[in-house]
Amino acid sequence: QIQKIATKAKEGLLERLDAGEIVIGDGGFVFALEKRGYVKAGPWTPEATVEHPEAVRQLHREFLRAGSNVLQTFTFYASEDKLENRGNYVAEKISCQKVNEAACDIAREVASEGDALVAGGVSQTPSYLSCKDKAEVKAAFRKQLDVFMKKNVDFLIAEYFEHVEEAVWAVEVLKESGKPVAATMCIGPEGDMHGVPPGQCAVQLVKAGASIVGVNCHFDPDISLETVKLMKEGLQAAKLKAHLMSQPLAFHTPDCGKQGFIDLPEFPFGLEPRIVTRWDIQKYARKAYDLGIRYIGGCCGFEPYHIRAIAEELAPERGFLPEASEKHGSWGNSLSMHTKPWVRARARKEYWENLKPASGRPYCPSMSKPDGWGVTKGARELMQQREATSEQQLKELFQKQKF
Amino acid sequence: QIQKIATKAKEGLLERLDAGEIVIGDGGFVFALEKRGYVKAGPWTPEATVEHPEAVRQLHREFLRAGSNVLQTFTFYASEDKLENRGNYVAEKISCQKVNEAACDIAREVASEGDALVAGGVSQTPSYLSCKDKAEVKAAFRKQLDVFMKKNVDFLIAEYFEHVEEAVWAVEVLKESGKPVAATMCIGPEGDMHGVPPGQCAVQLVKAGASIVGVNCHFDPDISLETVKLMKEGLQAAKLKAHLMSQPLAFHTPDCGKQGFIDLPEFPFGLEPRIVTRWDIQKYARKAYDLGIRYIGGCCGFEPYHIRAIAEELAPERGFLPEASEKHGSWGNSLSMHTKPWVRARARKEYWENLKPASGRPYCPSMSKPDGWGVTKGARELMQQREATSEQQLKELFQKQKF
Amino acid sequence: QIQKIATKAKEGLLERLDAGEIVIGDGGFVFALEKRGYVKAGPWTPEATVEHPEAVRQLHREFLRAGSNVLQTFTFYASEDKLENRGNYVAEKISCQKVNEAACDIAREVASEGDALVAGGVSQTPSYLSCKDKAEVKAAFRKQLDVFMKKNVDFLIAEYFEHVEEAVWAVEVLKESGKPVAATMCIGPEGDMHGVPPGQCAVQLVKAGASIVGVNCHFDPDISLETVKLMKEGLQAAKLKAHLMSQPLAFHTPDCGKQGFIDLPEFPFGLEPRIVTRWDIQKYARKAYDLGIRYIGGCCGFEPYHIRAIAEELAPERGFLPEASEKHGSWGNSLSMHTKPWVRARARKEYWENLKPASGRPYCPSMSKPDGWGVTKGARELMQQREATSEQQLKELFQKQKF
Amino acid sequence: QIQKIATKAKEGLLERLDAGEIVIGDGGFVFALEKRGYVKAGPWTPEATVEHPEAVRQLHREFLRAGSNVLQTFTFYASEDKLENRGNYVAEKISCQKVNEAACDIAREVASEGDALVAGGVSQTPSYLSCKDKAEVKAAFRKQLDVFMKKNVDFLIAEYFEHVEEAVWAVEVLKESGKPVAATMCIGPEGDMHGVPPGQCAVQLVKAGASIVGVNCHFDPDISLETVKLMKEGLQAAKLKAHLMSQPLAFHTPDCGKQGFIDLPEFPFGLEPRIVTRWDIQKYARKAYDLGIRYIGGCCGFEPYHIRAIAEELAPERGFLPEASEKHGSWGNSLSMHTKPWVRARARKEYWENLKPASGRPYCPSMSKPDGWGVTKGARELMQQREATSEQQLKELFQKQKF
Repeated sequence: QIQKIATKAKEGLLERLDAGEIVIGDGGFVFALEKRGYVKAGPWTPEATVEHPEAVRQLHREFLRAGSNVLQTFTFYASEDKLENRGNYVAEKISCQKVNEAACDIAREVASEGDALVAGGVSQTPSYLSCKDKAEVKAAFRKQLDVFMKKNVDFLIAEYFEHVEEAVWAVEVLKESGKPVAATMCIGPEGDMHGVPPGQCAVQLVKAGASIVGVNCHFDPDISLETVKLMKEGLQAAKLKAHLMSQPLAFHTPDCGKQGFIDLPEFPFGLEPRIVTRWDIQKYARKAYDLGIRYIGGCCGFEPYHIRAIAEELAPERGFLPEASEKHGSWGNSLSMHTKPWVRARARKEYWENLKPASGRPYCPSMSKPDGWGVTKGARELMQQREATSEQQLKELFQKQKF
Repeated sequence: QIQKIATKAKEGLLERLDAGEIVIGDGGFVFALEKRGYVKAGPWTPEATVEHPEAVRQLHREFLRAGSNVLQTFTFYASEDKLENRGNYVAEKISCQKVNEAACDIAREVASEGDALVAGGVSQTPSYLSCKDKAEVKAAFRKQLDVFMKKNVDFLIAEYFEHVEEAVWAVEVLKESGKPVAATMCIGPEGDMHGVPPGQCAVQLVKAGASIVGVNCHFDPDISLETVKLMKEGLQAAKLKAHLMSQPLAFHTPDCGKQGFIDLPEFPFGLEPRIVTRWDIQKYARKAYDLGIRYIGGCCGFEPYHIRAIAEELAPERGFLPEASEKHGSWGNSLSMHTKPWVRARARKEYWENLKPASGRPYCPSMSKPDGWGVTKGARELMQQREATSEQQLKELFQKQKF
Repeated sequence: QIQKIATKAKEGLLERLDAGEIVIGDGGFVFALEKRGYVKAGPWTPEATVEHPEAVRQLHREFLRAGSNVLQTFTFYASEDKLENRGNYVAEKISCQKVNEAACDIAREVASEGDALVAGGVSQTPSYLSCKDKAEVKAAFRKQLDVFMKKNVDFLIAEYFEHVEEAVWAVEVLKESGKPVAATMCIGPEGDMHGVPPGQCAVQLVKAGASIVGVNCHFDPDISLETVKLMKEGLQAAKLKAHLMSQPLAFHTPDCGKQGFIDLPEFPFGLEPRIVTRWDIQKYARKAYDLGIRYIGGCCGFEPYHIRAIAEELAPERGFLPEASEKHGSWGNSLSMHTKPWVRARARKEYWENLKPASGRPYCPSMSKPDGWGVTKGARELMQQREATSEQQLKELFQKQKF
Repeated sequence: QIQKIATKAKEGLLERLDAGEIVIGDGGFVFALEKRGYVKAGPWTPEATVEHPEAVRQLHREFLRAGSNVLQTFTFYASEDKLENRGNYVAEKISCQKVNEAACDIAREVASEGDALVAGGVSQTPSYLSCKDKAEVKAAFRKQLDVFMKKNVDFLIAEYFEHVEEAVWAVEVLKESGKPVAATMCIGPEGDMHGVPPGQCAVQLVKAGASIVGVNCHFDPDISLETVKLMKEGLQAAKLKAHLMSQPLAFHTPDCGKQGFIDLPEFPFGLEPRIVTRWDIQKYARKAYDLGIRYIGGCCGFEPYHIRAIAEELAPERGFLPEASEKHGSWGNSLSMHTKPWVRARARKEYWENLKPASGRPYCPSMSKPDGWGVTKGARELMQQREATSEQQLKELFQKQKF
């Protein structure tokens, strides 16, 4: 049964999660729109909301069709300090406020076409890295929050934080709004850049007011779920309750170091061979569900068909398929009418579940050594080095290395 | 210098090619729209032109921004006989004519926003495979041509033919229109399914009236260029003149058999690790240009950023960059302001040109053995087996094999 | 300068190590002789000392020529309880004592041809696994020790122990002899089968009387050096002094689980693609030396040319090359007279040091998932699972799994 | 049933082959002895027959035990002109005659221990490449033949020829002896260095007097069998009769160019990951047999256990196993008593037949691009380039390339 969208009254995020419902997030805007020609890799800023709203609208629509229950405003790196760098990239100056407002309007327009909520998002700031002045950083978040409140988004997300300290500040600001707050960090199992382990990060975020905690970006689904598992255990040990959330990369990164895919030599223009298949995503969705995660989405690399794969895997639990499944046969069954018998033979779950897809790249390796701080002799050593060192120590180590 | 689109009076296809201009084609609609949720893998039919015109329009727009000089009507597999199978997939019956007309209208609307021509396309028919009656097959093409004439497309393409006989019939029908005709076959260096070598295919197509000949789909850029090279040599030997054209896959297929990527075990839902990078495409564009090809585009797997890579590689020859290059630094130079020094170090041509991207899949191989007729012991033997056998012989061989 | 063997009076093992000399061990007998046709994989017993002494003698001689300072008696798995199983494999019954005595005689004969010591070796027993009765296990070691004393070997090695408890018993027995005792366990960084970490294993072995401690077999050079590093740290923390020793596999095993290469699907008849090159060994020798290890040898997979690579890498420190270097140009310089210029271009260190050798197996992956207790989802998870569980727990876990 | 060697009167080579018997050759001496420390890579000369006869004798013995019916005298590159270069490598001058005579004596001594014939071998000469004077080249062969006649070898092999012209001269000289002559070239499917196709090479060699023709060295078993197949077809077309022979590499070389493994970047010190398994060899032996080849052996990389794999695969046809099978359970059955159930589960044919062994090298590719003349863009192009060009043309092409 395929859900006809916009057919029931919308419930809020916490109502859904508290009722045990699965909430499906959306995918990665900056990577998808970079490939479509609307976002520049490097700055990664979202001026497309003003310059090319039709492109942003269309991507929202595709995620909605694919089954997303949340449309995040396309406001990544849209804090004023970040957008100021942007001056180098666009012809006319577009104000920070205009970009953020347009993002809200587009998300709301599309959300009203189906069963989706609008989430306003903030992420880590250059201010934190340069000055670390709490008041100044909080002011930057507040400026974005003002727009979200004016546009009345349904809930708020603090995402893509490498430092739990800054994430806590963000949650504190967002919490002032009275709206539900979700918080995800872009960390791996070894914790934040100061070495705070995932379990402690989760505890701090919940104490700061987050109702949902988890991870986004930087690592592949397997590694991200490991991290969320550590967060869950941290919360249990502290006897705290919160909903869990995961929005990983759609790239395989078994070989990345402490800071994830950015340090891989392939970032950001040679990641194609790492793109996960829809079947990888079905496994991810099932594993996330089994771990108790109920807010399940994606980040960079997630295209609409990846989100649809989450919705299809969890259709038994949810009771319906997303609209875009009208154009997809679960587990390849749309191949059952192919003219070639050996292609018809692929129209079954066992086939796709067990396929080990070849790269078609016989001159390329399967793993890379990360650049920068992550330069080590293999994943094994990485595991050991991840433990103690703070970011400052890492920086010093790096400065001693020849580059 | 970035081209402001729609600034000069449009010339026709042959005027451009005869003047030595480069004409950049567009990318693959069925694969891109499948991932966006609007096309069903298996039938691969284009009812989205009626059901979701905004999605088709947006994809056309992205290719236009990326530098395409041709927008092909999204009429792949839209012949009446093919669309009849579709009954199984869509709720309401949509007429063949309606699908084709909508495709023309959308393409024309977007083409008018820039310097692009509209091309109406026909491809191989189920009728040919089942009955091979010339009149019947030609009638199917004529039905689509009627729409293209009514909607006054700028030129016509007969594409995705595995049998040169049917391709010749298509060219003969299209030629009746008086408009320029391009013809591409989905064959590799070993020729069509009856064993007609590429050089002879090209000769037959030009004699039938095609002004531009080449290949599309089924094979990766390297193999496709080999095939076009053989076509060029065939034409030279026959002292015939025609423009050359290539629209290959954006998937690496070094391991495919006679019928290309369809027989690879990964087709169509596990091809991700084979997706080519933008740098692969720059190499393809240069190699195609050096071979004398002037109509350079793509087929399945080509996303807007791949088309942009053609336009960027050939910007010195063309004198301008496409509009979407506003959001792209050539050869990665947009990374030059990154906060991490080792990421900044990637902002140069040498880096991306020489990168051998890892697959991130250490449990997967790099090559696959093709299924079906193509099942052989390695690429080497494939080369030998490709020579003589006709499709009939291959079918008989296959029927003797256990499956 | 190539050392003329047998030219100086031999010093004992501890005299050498105490003086800071490097002692080079020998390579793997069971694997080398299996390939030569004298040892049966599975039982792995050394009846060849009686059946084909010339084959054993020749292998000893090759290691001596390659630079070994120690010839271990070929008495692996030659305890009486182990040899009893052998009844199934050889035609005539050969007594345990005969096998052990012949091993001593052959090793001594060859050692007298050069600057090498003879080491008598014992390894883990079936008795320990089945009954764990201390007296019974010790009696088995004593029976072998009696032969070593009668034949007056130069020192003793307790090697290939997975349980530190049994290794300690072995050391205690060997120590009764008054000869120097070395002890190596076949464990990885996660410790012995009961979860005793490497550092504690080392402490127990030294307290039991071992003058040299380290690891052998089961893991590749990189992982083995990690383990020895943990042993070193354990000894330092306990303020104990001992010499360090490493005799790893000559197979790459980045993907193995807790019990090393035995659980890899390729063990023991498909390990060829994992064989390390001589250049891998030179890196291993340097890294071992830098870590403070002074007894550096190899185990399964080490052929004479691998041992020679240790001697060549450490020739600057030792002041001479081994005899077999008469037939080897360091870092490939023997290629400098090749007729092809591109082969001549390989006659340099930078070339071989940086070569990433291809497998020539495009249909094979680069990593495997271990069987049995080690079945997990990737190396990352393995790291986590390695921590707590005792062998008994692992067995129980395994029995619950479907096999 | 294991054959007790030396139990029946020996028949000559042609008697065996004419009676339809399988004759198993031996393996590669220069590579095996290089790893054992007795041959220098680069010159690859066989002075070990004089310097270390025990090492040569032992290797012969291992091949005999493994099932070889032929022991080739270790006289590779032992022509006088080749040995003269050797002056750089050995301390005392050893005469060419002495090396060749010692080789004969050792081979005969070991052959007399079992059911094996002694074959004297000659291979391509520096003289041919430098002057190409027929008389001079023939004189060099005659000098080696004199030794073989004096020592009364059982038959003669002309092997490792890249130019059919020189091979024909060698056959003509050897034929003067009245003994049976076998001739193998080190070529691939594209023929000799002047572009003479394998079929024509075979015809010329048989016309010159060879009773057995085939290939050795330079390519892996699959490619070598392709070449022999072409030879067989050439002979059939010319209505000539001869026995077929194959002695390929024990390295996988799917990616090599016209001149085989020498041009691969891994030659000769990084070939380890390409070493074939015993199971690869069983497949090779079966395929060779099915192709009608009855003299089946190996060249560089073949160790005794590889030869045993030929003998085990063809035991049903031959009626017995080789002596070394006393230490080997066919298809892994010696693992059936292993203590771990998942290792016991490997004691079956299906397991090893289907295993795709991992390389354990996640940072390495699976294929390499050949150096030198072979530098091309992938195996596909290589196939095309192989056709026409003569060695001279290739040299010119190469000189134009930057190196």
